[in-house]
Amino acid sequence: MTANDLFKQIQLKKSFLAVGLDTDIKKIPAFLLDSDEPIFEFNKAIIDATQDLCIAYKLNIAFYEAMGIPGWQALEKTIDYIPNEQLIIADAKRGDIGNTCDKYAEAFFKTLNVDAITLSPYMGEDSVKPFLQYEGKWAIVLSLTSNPSSTDFQQHTQDGEPLYIKVATKAAEWGNENQIMLVVGATHPENFKAIRAVSPKHFYLVPGVGAQGGDMAQVAHYGMNEQCGLIVNSSRSIIYAGSDANFASDARSAAQAYQSQMQAILIERGLV
Amino acid sequence: MTANDLFKQIQLKKSFLAVGLDTDIKKIPAFLLDSDEPIFEFNKAIIDATQDLCIAYKLNIAFYEAMGIPGWQALEKTIDYIPNEQLIIADAKRGDIGNTCDKYAEAFFKTLNVDAITLSPYMGEDSVKPFLQYEGKWAIVLSLTSNPSSTDFQQHTQDGEPLYIKVATKAAEWGNENQIMLVVGATHPENFKAIRAVSPKHFYLVPGVGAQGGDMAQVAHYGMNEQCGLIVNSSRSIIYAGSDANFASDARSAAQAYQSQMQAILIERGLV
Repeated sequence: MTANDLFKQIQLKKSFLAVGLDTDIKKIPAFLLDSDEPIFEFNKAIIDATQDLCIAYKLNIAFYEAMGIPGWQALEKTIDYIPNEQLIIADAKRGDIGNTCDKYAEAFFKTLNVDAITLSPYMGEDSVKPFLQYEGKWAIVLSLTSNPSSTDFQQHTQDGEPLYIKVATKAAEWGNENQIMLVVGATHPENFKAIRAVSPKHFYLVPGVGAQGGDMAQVAHYGMNEQCGLIVNSSRSIIYAGSDANFASDARSAAQAYQSQMQAILIERGLV
Repeated sequence: MTANDLFKQIQLKKSFLAVGLDTDIKKIPAFLLDSDEPIFEFNKAIIDATQDLCIAYKLNIAFYEAMGIPGWQALEKTIDYIPNEQLIIADAKRGDIGNTCDKYAEAFFKTLNVDAITLSPYMGEDSVKPFLQYEGKWAIVLSLTSNPSSTDFQQHTQDGEPLYIKVATKAAEWGNENQIMLVVGATHPENFKAIRAVSPKHFYLVPGVGAQGGDMAQVAHYGMNEQCGLIVNSSRSIIYAGSDANFASDARSAAQAYQSQMQAILIERGLV
């Protein structure tokens, strides 16, 4: 997939929503536990109920890893089930060097065959480069995250340049908008402007709208570019919108609310 | 395991060596491929041949992930096989927030049941704290890594304080020497002194001796404390020392060379 392809999907769906599959065996409706594959059954129902409203699914790898091998089986089956036109993001926050990084790229882009993976930039270019060799795939580099302790190190400032800006600048040099995206948390909407200045064409994956308190209109105001340039993720507020037999239609209603808001923004911006 | 327990093992074995199991199906001796479980068979032979010479095994998770489910099966079986007195390190470089981080801690400290995991600090305290709730387990936080592009961000300096020192300082505040270790690469021996100043009692996991060019004597000179405080890892130069039927005894010889060097240093320092 290219940035152009992604923008076409955004225009078609009138949505820049990613649904986050942070699927937790302790949180899914109890009746699903009678199934042989409760995690996959939950994901399947969520995907069926939301796929016309979103352009991406983000799989939070920790939730699957925590279950050991059955978790990886559910992950593989879910990836196979997601329709082709959807961007499949592995939220894995990997990051290692040289030969190890080659292996992570192989794990996610060949073995699991996802379209994009989140990466931590702490080890520098070595930890991102191997992912850029795969055409049509994206490395999504953490720049400014949405969590409270994002300030511990990301705001460390040399000569007026905070670390998250340095990361965004370097990442935009390492790969173009068809290779690199950035993670920019919705809890810092005022910082989008400075990040946009150093990466005008790149897409941003934006967590933190909803449960973490980020504001969609603010994010769009400061972060949107002429190809939208934003993928806003919501996980818990969609997939756990309901907790009984109607959980899938409750998830659909929650996703629909995001999509409506996004449609209004896209129309206002003249992007659809 | 506590820092005291670890030091006792170091004294007993006269070694502070970790053997890195970066096991790659493309690099193991060809005759093992006839086995049903070539990765486990290779690891088992390496462990049998080296366990009296080292105090830890470091499993590079990328190599197992790249193989999908059979890789995770080999990983689980290897962890079960490693003797109890050895420190088992998952070199996973994970790092995420809140509820996601809880899941990674569960994945590594419960499901896989390793003793320690490497973590990337980019997202701050949120991404380390959940790991500190497990008694007898360690979070090993990246401070200064051994790769060429470690300078991209780790040297970003605010008011004279490079990022890697800020990370070491914060990490040492988050947890004591029984909870936190730091990754400090052998390719920067002169920088150990400044890191030691902010984390005098913590153990360091030291990659980069051998293949990457780091010097053990220099590392010991600048980094050792009164409980040794160092775990020096070697992966490729041990496990791929040989490539034929004698690979295990070749690995033993390579590990023996490290152990002899370490014994001499420990004696010189009066630690054994």
